[in-house]
Amino acid sequence: MPMLAGIPASVFLFWRMPVSGNSLGTLFRLTTFGESHGPAIGGVVDGCPPGMDLDESDIQKDLERRRPGQSRFTTQRRESDRVKILSGVFEGKTTGTPIGLLIENEDQKSRDYTEIQEVFRPGHADWTYLKKYGRRDYRGGGRASARETAMRVAGGAIARKILRYQGVEIQGCLIAMGPEQTDPGKRDWSQVDKNPFFSPDSDAVARFEVLLDRCRSAGDSVGAVLEVVARGVPVGWGDPVYGRLDADLAGGMMGINAVKGVEIGTGFASAGGYGSQMADEMVPDAGQRDGVRFLSNHSGGILGGISNGNEIVVRLAVKPTPSIHKPLQTVTTSGQGQIIQTRGRHDPCVGIRAVPVAEAMMALILVDHFFRHRSRHALFPKVD
Amino acid sequence: MPMLAGIPASVFLFWRMPVSGNSLGTLFRLTTFGESHGPAIGGVVDGCPPGMDLDESDIQKDLERRRPGQSRFTTQRRESDRVKILSGVFEGKTTGTPIGLLIENEDQKSRDYTEIQEVFRPGHADWTYLKKYGRRDYRGGGRASARETAMRVAGGAIARKILRYQGVEIQGCLIAMGPEQTDPGKRDWSQVDKNPFFSPDSDAVARFEVLLDRCRSAGDSVGAVLEVVARGVPVGWGDPVYGRLDADLAGGMMGINAVKGVEIGTGFASAGGYGSQMADEMVPDAGQRDGVRFLSNHSGGILGGISNGNEIVVRLAVKPTPSIHKPLQTVTTSGQGQIIQTRGRHDPCVGIRAVPVAEAMMALILVDHFFRHRSRHALFPKVD
Amino acid sequence: MPMLAGIPASVFLFWRMPVSGNSLGTLFRLTTFGESHGPAIGGVVDGCPPGMDLDESDIQKDLERRRPGQSRFTTQRRESDRVKILSGVFEGKTTGTPIGLLIENEDQKSRDYTEIQEVFRPGHADWTYLKKYGRRDYRGGGRASARETAMRVAGGAIARKILRYQGVEIQGCLIAMGPEQTDPGKRDWSQVDKNPFFSPDSDAVARFEVLLDRCRSAGDSVGAVLEVVARGVPVGWGDPVYGRLDADLAGGMMGINAVKGVEIGTGFASAGGYGSQMADEMVPDAGQRDGVRFLSNHSGGILGGISNGNEIVVRLAVKPTPSIHKPLQTVTTSGQGQIIQTRGRHDPCVGIRAVPVAEAMMALILVDHFFRHRSRHALFPKVD
Amino acid sequence: MPMLAGIPASVFLFWRMPVSGNSLGTLFRLTTFGESHGPAIGGVVDGCPPGMDLDESDIQKDLERRRPGQSRFTTQRRESDRVKILSGVFEGKTTGTPIGLLIENEDQKSRDYTEIQEVFRPGHADWTYLKKYGRRDYRGGGRASARETAMRVAGGAIARKILRYQGVEIQGCLIAMGPEQTDPGKRDWSQVDKNPFFSPDSDAVARFEVLLDRCRSAGDSVGAVLEVVARGVPVGWGDPVYGRLDADLAGGMMGINAVKGVEIGTGFASAGGYGSQMADEMVPDAGQRDGVRFLSNHSGGILGGISNGNEIVVRLAVKPTPSIHKPLQTVTTSGQGQIIQTRGRHDPCVGIRAVPVAEAMMALILVDHFFRHRSRHALFPKVD
Repeated sequence: MPMLAGIPASVFLFWRMPVSGNSLGTLFRLTTFGESHGPAIGGVVDGCPPGMDLDESDIQKDLERRRPGQSRFTTQRRESDRVKILSGVFEGKTTGTPIGLLIENEDQKSRDYTEIQEVFRPGHADWTYLKKYGRRDYRGGGRASARETAMRVAGGAIARKILRYQGVEIQGCLIAMGPEQTDPGKRDWSQVDKNPFFSPDSDAVARFEVLLDRCRSAGDSVGAVLEVVARGVPVGWGDPVYGRLDADLAGGMMGINAVKGVEIGTGFASAGGYGSQMADEMVPDAGQRDGVRFLSNHSGGILGGISNGNEIVVRLAVKPTPSIHKPLQTVTTSGQGQIIQTRGRHDPCVGIRAVPVAEAMMALILVDHFFRHRSRHALFPKVD
Repeated sequence: MPMLAGIPASVFLFWRMPVSGNSLGTLFRLTTFGESHGPAIGGVVDGCPPGMDLDESDIQKDLERRRPGQSRFTTQRRESDRVKILSGVFEGKTTGTPIGLLIENEDQKSRDYTEIQEVFRPGHADWTYLKKYGRRDYRGGGRASARETAMRVAGGAIARKILRYQGVEIQGCLIAMGPEQTDPGKRDWSQVDKNPFFSPDSDAVARFEVLLDRCRSAGDSVGAVLEVVARGVPVGWGDPVYGRLDADLAGGMMGINAVKGVEIGTGFASAGGYGSQMADEMVPDAGQRDGVRFLSNHSGGILGGISNGNEIVVRLAVKPTPSIHKPLQTVTTSGQGQIIQTRGRHDPCVGIRAVPVAEAMMALILVDHFFRHRSRHALFPKVD
Repeated sequence: MPMLAGIPASVFLFWRMPVSGNSLGTLFRLTTFGESHGPAIGGVVDGCPPGMDLDESDIQKDLERRRPGQSRFTTQRRESDRVKILSGVFEGKTTGTPIGLLIENEDQKSRDYTEIQEVFRPGHADWTYLKKYGRRDYRGGGRASARETAMRVAGGAIARKILRYQGVEIQGCLIAMGPEQTDPGKRDWSQVDKNPFFSPDSDAVARFEVLLDRCRSAGDSVGAVLEVVARGVPVGWGDPVYGRLDADLAGGMMGINAVKGVEIGTGFASAGGYGSQMADEMVPDAGQRDGVRFLSNHSGGILGGISNGNEIVVRLAVKPTPSIHKPLQTVTTSGQGQIIQTRGRHDPCVGIRAVPVAEAMMALILVDHFFRHRSRHALFPKVD
Repeated sequence: MPMLAGIPASVFLFWRMPVSGNSLGTLFRLTTFGESHGPAIGGVVDGCPPGMDLDESDIQKDLERRRPGQSRFTTQRRESDRVKILSGVFEGKTTGTPIGLLIENEDQKSRDYTEIQEVFRPGHADWTYLKKYGRRDYRGGGRASARETAMRVAGGAIARKILRYQGVEIQGCLIAMGPEQTDPGKRDWSQVDKNPFFSPDSDAVARFEVLLDRCRSAGDSVGAVLEVVARGVPVGWGDPVYGRLDADLAGGMMGINAVKGVEIGTGFASAGGYGSQMADEMVPDAGQRDGVRFLSNHSGGILGGISNGNEIVVRLAVKPTPSIHKPLQTVTTSGQGQIIQTRGRHDPCVGIRAVPVAEAMMALILVDHFFRHRSRHALFPKVD
């Protein structure tokens, strides 16, 4: 047997590159771990200021919005998603030390994985993960599973609380599902939490229900477009040239599972327009924080990579999940052609549960830029 | 006079946060400096492997494609954009040390800036920069100027050469200009460099000319949609979960001046579709590098944040420049309302010259992921 | 009551800077969390390659060497320090995903902390933490406690296993304790694990015992000098200019609790010598890996920030713990003078248990440089 | 001829890992480029706040202290070391954009390098660089040359000016040269700039002169011990656990060419002492900034990785340069044994000119921690 450094060479055969890049942020940093079918998922929030009231309910509240099984329109996987805080909070307040977070996985059904073990599910990361790493936890999506996003929501809940003290509020909604659109004229943010789709247009709810019931019976799935808005962000957050706020938001949003497009403000539609329509004109207005009012917000609150004081508006395209009951052509790990039909509980529209995830990503990106901005802004009290 | 630490307090009045974030990349890192109206712009490429043939012409070639004044459809600012290599190359080959790059600014017209000095140009970064930093080089866009992108192109040229040795080719084009579209059915990549618009559809060229001539005479501008493609990227580049290739590409592209949207593969259109249409089915194919052929490429070459072996396809929305001759309402630095009309030489469609910039960003992001992948992949020769 | 953003201003009174910087490494990264008196401490290892055999016993083995209460010469705090792996290992092998590690704290005595709650222990971080963060977990050292180093040892155990496959072995020892020295002429590495002091000189053991018994009865403590050696590191690890291997080792070692000095090779003694003595001369030697033998190793295996193929030799100075029974002058949190005498179980020489911690830090720094080196070295098989 | 991707395989033969790691700092970042015998060296300072007065003389002043050829005790290489500011300063004040710095190399003697081209100078980085990169600029130390430190001094000058506005002053001196010591009892900081050795003890100057004259005539060199002190650093700079101020200072100092040891406060001597001697006791003192006075400063101003308000005291061991006229055994690049004698102009004690470099490193590390601290400290004006 061939030996390397006194060890059988076969030992090395599956050494490939690790899954790295599990941290997000510079001054406020979230690091996560855990697979969909392991004992637990967890995270570490590094950079939360000391002295803030924090307990598990602050985080649980946001987790509930993402939790599966809350309506018949999402997966029926049963996870109570109870988060535990393991460190960083003392006597009800943050100490400034890293906050360890843990959620135990409950619904790890002991079932037969043989089928998916040896076949690449089209549209999933099975193929790329196995090719890259040489092995994978075949019991589910493993690290590529959307289960990881529970930790983004948990970390985002802490980010959000910090931002709230700065007067910043973040809200997301679903503005289109497959071919069905909400009506921009009927957008009412107070409706978002009153229906299972996070729809801001209550009239669209019935159409969404019909669409999803149709998807479910057809064994198919649909995509969605989400919008996330941050209100109250002051002028000045964001670092040019490569640390721009828009760049970081785009990167953060595109990094959510199944997202295939991101736009800010008027976005792709601005490409089809004229400069005379798209420049956000300004007028003096003593009633505004900075004495200036913008007559429009095509820029989505960001100019030159820096917040301009308007609402920050980001939209995301979420692709339809490829976990469908319809037969699809695929290939086995040994290279044979095969037909696959996903069975079991899956979200017919993953875009719905992506709403709280997108809000969390917005919060995580913004709070990091808040700290980056603050590190050197107005070095002496007299300024501003 | 009030004193702080023995120094007049007034000294501190304009101390605000610096422009940071001028570096891009982890293992292959570009750092840039320089303003549009300063003596020079420059950059440092850190992480280029030693032993590669490199001289200034390798970089100049790409700079020529971005250079202003090459057709009547771009700004007439005269810059020869001659790049000098100051370090990192010895006897015609890279040494592996950082490559210092310098381009002197030539066309710094000594003119009267009083007008733009005291007024915020709508849609520009004037407002956000002054609010954030308390001062700015009012002779032009300063650091927010698209002039900085010359350095991205220079750094990208080096990245591109490394990638070429890996069999990776990158090409960009303009697929829509304002309301005018190219025809997907007539897309011919060999046409791209044969017209001043980087259009892959030669039939669209005449329509683009008409549109731009109309813009110019109306003193208006138009947006554009670009597409950038990377061919030959093997399976496996990209780090989940937060270091995903799609996230980094989205961040990089959104970080280009005037870009307001980014999509990968089918992008926003996938949100409107069904899972049964959007899953890229796979079949065995001995003729392919990995023994597998995908029947479609809705995913744009990236699954779970990792390249899947198909073409990587990214599209960008570029907004119309707000530098137009039409009158716009705005505000002066002292808070008065004013009407502004931009004068002088400007690109009626900044999207055109953004094509080589977008190619460069694609190259910079990809080469960094190539090195990140390589650092730990297949630790021993037997693997793969 | 004054309000800020609709929230009572008092809420903000203790908002200060968070404890950040809880991650170590670039491509192989350890992030830790947890306080000495919280429910648990934990860590995340991001960057371990897939396919390596790993179970809890691999880590436990190293933790045992650091564990308190193993001889009468260390603190009697009772912690079984059982580590749990929460993710990243599947079917006995690493998957390449982040490895979540958890150790529950057992010995959190519910006692009266009033005394130390309101007084700054001299030589401890109480003063700097409270001044910086505005609050602290007064039940112990909190995040500044050496308990955190258990996680460095756990992460280091994984790093070490990777290095072992590369032929690299790391070993540390204690070469001086307070005024007592080991004899360089009697240094025998095989003795290190045979005595409770990690002494390489068996003759020194009796002297160390006498010294510590004397310390204990006097209620005093002593410092120590440690040496850590890495054998088998090939030529080439380390990045000039600011990412030098020696710089990173020095930073890592100085970052261990109570360390006040670091030297490499001949270290401080080389400052007192002549160039003719300190240059490590080289001669051809076909028996060596690189065909060259060095006649001495004053450089401690590093030249120009890069490993030169010799043993890497680092020495650390560990100060005596200030937790002593002798009366010391100090100040209360309200600014009053007070006399303090530390009670209870403490290590009379923290340098002993710092040996496995220093080995772990060496492993963590080296494995990161191994990956950094590997990312771009010898891009094609023909090289080397 | 073997081909890879259509390119002759020989092209790849010298592709090895690049020299990376040419940036220092997180929020205040210096990136440098340039070799000792190239056209120029340069740097980019990213993170300088806007509004600070800055011109080239601010930087030149510090460069003069490091410049060669200022006394007969340093190398006679003639470099005027005139720095040019290429960006980031407008109308005499920093704009907050990156500051590009350039120094042209003047004394690039066109001489015969054949001898050193094919031989490894003992104690130099020739061996490790060639082994790592496969090629090097053999006309001098290239990137490993101490010439690079001119850029550290330039960047450090800017850092220093920022710190000065915060009330922080940095000063370095040489406290030992080879076997000759300064007398701690005669230390007078005002003497440091009055002799060519940066000696704080004027009585030692004559002894240093004798020693160096002896070295020169013997063709030998000596090492040195430096001390650098920062006065006025407030309590609270530094991030535990891995971003500690002591760790970063140790890494920064060890990263200076020829440094082989770093200690803080009492350093290695504290390892030989007892806890009852080494704990810095505290007493109330209304005259102090924080109401507390420390009775000693064994900790060198840092406790738990955070500044405690005392002077920060760091000492460095600089090895004697191996560039000596005495014959040394070495090896050629083709593996033959050879005797080498360095000719030409070299510093007999490189420790002298390392003093301004060490000051600069102290400034660079401190200013970064100042910004890191400031980013989240005292989020609201009421605090502190």
